[in-house]
Amino acid sequence: MNKKRTTVLGAGSWGTVLAAVLADNGHPVTLWSRSRQTAEEINQQKTNRRYLKDVTLPEGIDATDDIAKALDDTHLVLVVVPSQAVRETVRKASPHIPDQALLVHAAKGFERSTLKRISEVLEEESPSHQGRIAVLSGPSHAEEVIQRSPTTVVVASQEEKSAKAAQSFLNNQSFRVYTHSDVVGVEVGGSLKNIIALGAGLSDGLGFGDNAKAALITRGLAEMARLGMAMGAEPITFAGLSGVGDLVVTCTSRHSRNWRAGNLLSRGHSLDEILQQMGMVVEGVKTTQAAHDLSNRYGVEMPIASELYEVLFEGKDPRQAVEDLMGRGETNELNEMIRGSLS
Amino acid sequence: MNKKRTTVLGAGSWGTVLAAVLADNGHPVTLWSRSRQTAEEINQQKTNRRYLKDVTLPEGIDATDDIAKALDDTHLVLVVVPSQAVRETVRKASPHIPDQALLVHAAKGFERSTLKRISEVLEEESPSHQGRIAVLSGPSHAEEVIQRSPTTVVVASQEEKSAKAAQSFLNNQSFRVYTHSDVVGVEVGGSLKNIIALGAGLSDGLGFGDNAKAALITRGLAEMARLGMAMGAEPITFAGLSGVGDLVVTCTSRHSRNWRAGNLLSRGHSLDEILQQMGMVVEGVKTTQAAHDLSNRYGVEMPIASELYEVLFEGKDPRQAVEDLMGRGETNELNEMIRGSLS
Repeated sequence: MNKKRTTVLGAGSWGTVLAAVLADNGHPVTLWSRSRQTAEEINQQKTNRRYLKDVTLPEGIDATDDIAKALDDTHLVLVVVPSQAVRETVRKASPHIPDQALLVHAAKGFERSTLKRISEVLEEESPSHQGRIAVLSGPSHAEEVIQRSPTTVVVASQEEKSAKAAQSFLNNQSFRVYTHSDVVGVEVGGSLKNIIALGAGLSDGLGFGDNAKAALITRGLAEMARLGMAMGAEPITFAGLSGVGDLVVTCTSRHSRNWRAGNLLSRGHSLDEILQQMGMVVEGVKTTQAAHDLSNRYGVEMPIASELYEVLFEGKDPRQAVEDLMGRGETNELNEMIRGSLS
Repeated sequence: MNKKRTTVLGAGSWGTVLAAVLADNGHPVTLWSRSRQTAEEINQQKTNRRYLKDVTLPEGIDATDDIAKALDDTHLVLVVVPSQAVRETVRKASPHIPDQALLVHAAKGFERSTLKRISEVLEEESPSHQGRIAVLSGPSHAEEVIQRSPTTVVVASQEEKSAKAAQSFLNNQSFRVYTHSDVVGVEVGGSLKNIIALGAGLSDGLGFGDNAKAALITRGLAEMARLGMAMGAEPITFAGLSGVGDLVVTCTSRHSRNWRAGNLLSRGHSLDEILQQMGMVVEGVKTTQAAHDLSNRYGVEMPIASELYEVLFEGKDPRQAVEDLMGRGETNELNEMIRGSLS
């Protein structure tokens, strides 16, 4: 394989680990951080302790806080910043991205102010890259990927060529990358699963059992697919790695920060306290707001997102919310899955 | 609600707990056990310690080892014996089951010698109950249901009236029963998930992480749906409680005996040792054999069941099996999900 220069924008845990995957594959990679201090730590100590405790990064990662330098002569740009920071980051980056480069994001959310999917934000901020935009998603806790623990993800693009090109940069023995064509489905699944994970953390924290959590995951999957289909996604996408796969890992793994936030919520901590204590972006919180609006816009019932919205922003008692979800109306499963509505 | 006499055939953990659900709902219930000793323990001490440690059963359960007596004037018969014991049990019971009674099973497997689904076995052994036969399935660890922890299940019948009748016997505040019409899908999902759970136990035991297990669950779901559709099931059923719901709980919960069997397998124990040590039927073992045959009969690729078959019955190294699964050919996700084939 021809080794080409690559760039990762964002040195949080996932951005740093994706830079390590590219380095493992022999691609020169420049990792851009907003923070000069983080960039220097990565260059000098091969660590990024704030996000990845006890991890030594592989050779071949060059960190910088200079975005123009990071993008010089690059062939692949991975955008791995929080959803709400994508527009600003890509706006700053865009003039420096070579025309032929691929632009792939791994953000999981919607832009809060516009309700746009992240690939739509990329298209708007870097129109010359249309057709070379893709999304990376799937069940992939960074803490495991950096250990080279077997992981599977998808990369979806409207252009098959772009999905395949991104795949060839990232795929290796322990990090298996599948191509996909359903950008909407992959983005919606990856975003909405964080809401269900908040709910799962809440349910576990309240002492409900595995049966209840399985019900929540199942109903959550149906809710994700309902909104996704209204937005133009293919239903089968939600049965794949970026749908049920990512949903399961986020709801059941000890690494999930959305699960942890939900868990803290069940113990009576306020949202502000939790966000402060975690010190990382919890995408599920803003995604719950976005889902609340999208559910209205598309006329789709989203009972789990609704209950979470009331808990997070309207002070509803978490136990009451879980009980209201369990006691809902439909008594035929297919009706419940398809409509999700109270009968 | 009119309280009617009901019967549970089989006093393992799930049969005993379903008897407790019926008793909670105020229905007189007779619980039949093959073992007189178990029946006496249940009647005299309100316990069934072999299967349910530290549990005191509610009032209203009358246990017996006399199958004719157990079925006297009954309106609902729940068949909750191991899959391979269903035919013999129902053959013995059939002459004593009142014509108007519902016949509902909760077995998760296929009949090994004929590859028939369990509802087909019921129809053959009790032909006068055709139309009043149903299957109960879903994410429902007995250990949680007996604690009245919130649980959701489905009951599927070809006749909506029968599904609704079974629902009205079993449904309550903490045990939510949804009706379903896809008997084949519900039976196939409930059976095949045990194979994936064996694989999940194996993967966890070998030290692969949550990312790998999420991939296994996702690919397992696709494999379940492929065989189910070939057998006449509706694909959406696999996205519901009896499909993904039951799959998730069985692959991630500490209560799952199939997961535990897979976990022991990873530590080099032989199949015979494991079955002896567990002292309960591990349905996934015989279901792996059945799936191996069904996959050939219907021409459906089932890579996970195949690898498990080789590990269980042909001495394949478990680590090699997991690695072979991860390294498989298709590189487009939809192709992988739909065909499951090596390209």
